[in-house]
Amino acid sequence: MFTGLSAFALTPLDDDRLDEHAYAKLITRLAGSGVDSIGALGSTGSYAYLTRGERARVAALAVQNAGDTPVIAGIGALRTRHVLEHADDAQQAGVRAVLLAPVSYQPLSDDEVYHLFERVTAGLSVPLVVYDNPRTTGFTFTDDLYAAVAKLPGVASIKVPPLPADPAIAHDRVTALRTLLAPEVTIGVSGDQVAAVSLRAGCDAWYSVIAGTLPDLALPIVRASSPVVAKAASDRLRPLFELFAAHGSLRVVAVIAEHLGLTGPACLPPPLRPLDAAAHHAVLQALATIDATPPA
Amino acid sequence: MFTGLSAFALTPLDDDRLDEHAYAKLITRLAGSGVDSIGALGSTGSYAYLTRGERARVAALAVQNAGDTPVIAGIGALRTRHVLEHADDAQQAGVRAVLLAPVSYQPLSDDEVYHLFERVTAGLSVPLVVYDNPRTTGFTFTDDLYAAVAKLPGVASIKVPPLPADPAIAHDRVTALRTLLAPEVTIGVSGDQVAAVSLRAGCDAWYSVIAGTLPDLALPIVRASSPVVAKAASDRLRPLFELFAAHGSLRVVAVIAEHLGLTGPACLPPPLRPLDAAAHHAVLQALATIDATPPA
Repeated sequence: MFTGLSAFALTPLDDDRLDEHAYAKLITRLAGSGVDSIGALGSTGSYAYLTRGERARVAALAVQNAGDTPVIAGIGALRTRHVLEHADDAQQAGVRAVLLAPVSYQPLSDDEVYHLFERVTAGLSVPLVVYDNPRTTGFTFTDDLYAAVAKLPGVASIKVPPLPADPAIAHDRVTALRTLLAPEVTIGVSGDQVAAVSLRAGCDAWYSVIAGTLPDLALPIVRASSPVVAKAASDRLRPLFELFAAHGSLRVVAVIAEHLGLTGPACLPPPLRPLDAAAHHAVLQALATIDATPPA
Repeated sequence: MFTGLSAFALTPLDDDRLDEHAYAKLITRLAGSGVDSIGALGSTGSYAYLTRGERARVAALAVQNAGDTPVIAGIGALRTRHVLEHADDAQQAGVRAVLLAPVSYQPLSDDEVYHLFERVTAGLSVPLVVYDNPRTTGFTFTDDLYAAVAKLPGVASIKVPPLPADPAIAHDRVTALRTLLAPEVTIGVSGDQVAAVSLRAGCDAWYSVIAGTLPDLALPIVRASSPVVAKAASDRLRPLFELFAAHGSLRVVAVIAEHLGLTGPACLPPPLRPLDAAAHHAVLQALATIDATPPA
């Protein structure tokens, strides 16, 4: 469950209410695609914007529609009390693992983050993925904190921020991370644009945004017969990765999901807004360019 | 209401539940201190960590215990829907103004933040203070965005991040800000350590952390007979300001409130933690140093 391709699904809204029908369809489609796990309520799943009730419902829908594909659900919140509530709800729904980022308002100390993970893991009956995403949480893990948190009971994987694009530097970084972690703790990368490089550098998993909407374009990177083929499969997606960098991956995959008929046109929670017409058009053009490029 | 000293109160918890008795006492004490307004549910009031029910209750308690002192209540949240709910609740409670920061998880665009403020101000019957705090929100206003948001109906004041400590540079910055804003929109500063400089530089208000717990030490800075006296009143507090920089002002004022018997020992919402013994001791030593320093 903590290796290979984990596809992080959008949580589509319709008029600012959970679009349960669209979500169930998204999850069913992912389960049929052959991904190794489904990430519900990740950053791409807008977990931070949703109420407790909405999150409990999303976790339940994910499990009900994922078949045999294991579901990992995000449980992050600003307040520890609420993290524990989300953990209870997610486990009640039957998720196979939870994902926790140290979401911050007041900048947190390493000690505060360690105690958060200690408190949460003490009460879990499923494994936990440590989620390090400084861009959204405002918190940056040190290597010492990785090592300390990874020793807590049930910690199964660490989802690290994008690694350097240079293969040699990425390899050195993964090697350094390995020395911090017990062998059973996997290293997963976010940052779709560096997934191929990161897997080649030794990462065990790719916690993927694009796989949540376009699993058939992400799987060739993970299942490639050689690093050269994986790189070609990744290079093919470059037009989208450039738009991810310009607009945020969430807003871009929301356009794609709408274009594919998977969601309505305003599926993100305000204040997040759909891309403007020019950016929307650029996303569709990128998709057309990818379609016109032969697969690796 | 949008000039002079605004005292931002802690929202004390007890065993992770709202300590209503302590909060009512804090507000009564502030109202009796002579501050110009009371800030409820600011960053110092842990608004971002509290539930809708807790926030509605805090707003009501603030209004009920503030007497004639106007209450400004924070309404920020990650999702626009929740901001609007907090605005309704705060107005129902009788607050005289609201304070809104563009709290972020996904980094927000200027356009998204503008539309957030447009949406919220359209439904308000009380004035709004624009709250710019990049350290907690992850969002940085441009001057163009200040100018655009300040034109929205009911925008009464902008709470800006700490100005430069150099008086001439601070003065230039306030002068530049003035050119962006209608004359009736006041400029208030956060960053207690630069309050004296900022008021001298032309700021109209000080949105103050320390005044929420030690109003008698903050008022002399605002009411000083001359800039020299204000600077001396500010310099006297330097031992505390250094601890604010080291540990975050919220954790420091929590120690002071406990020391004064205003709150219990663990009044912050986890994952925030009380300062450790050494830092706690340093806060008490700073208070003793200030006590031993003659007032300006």
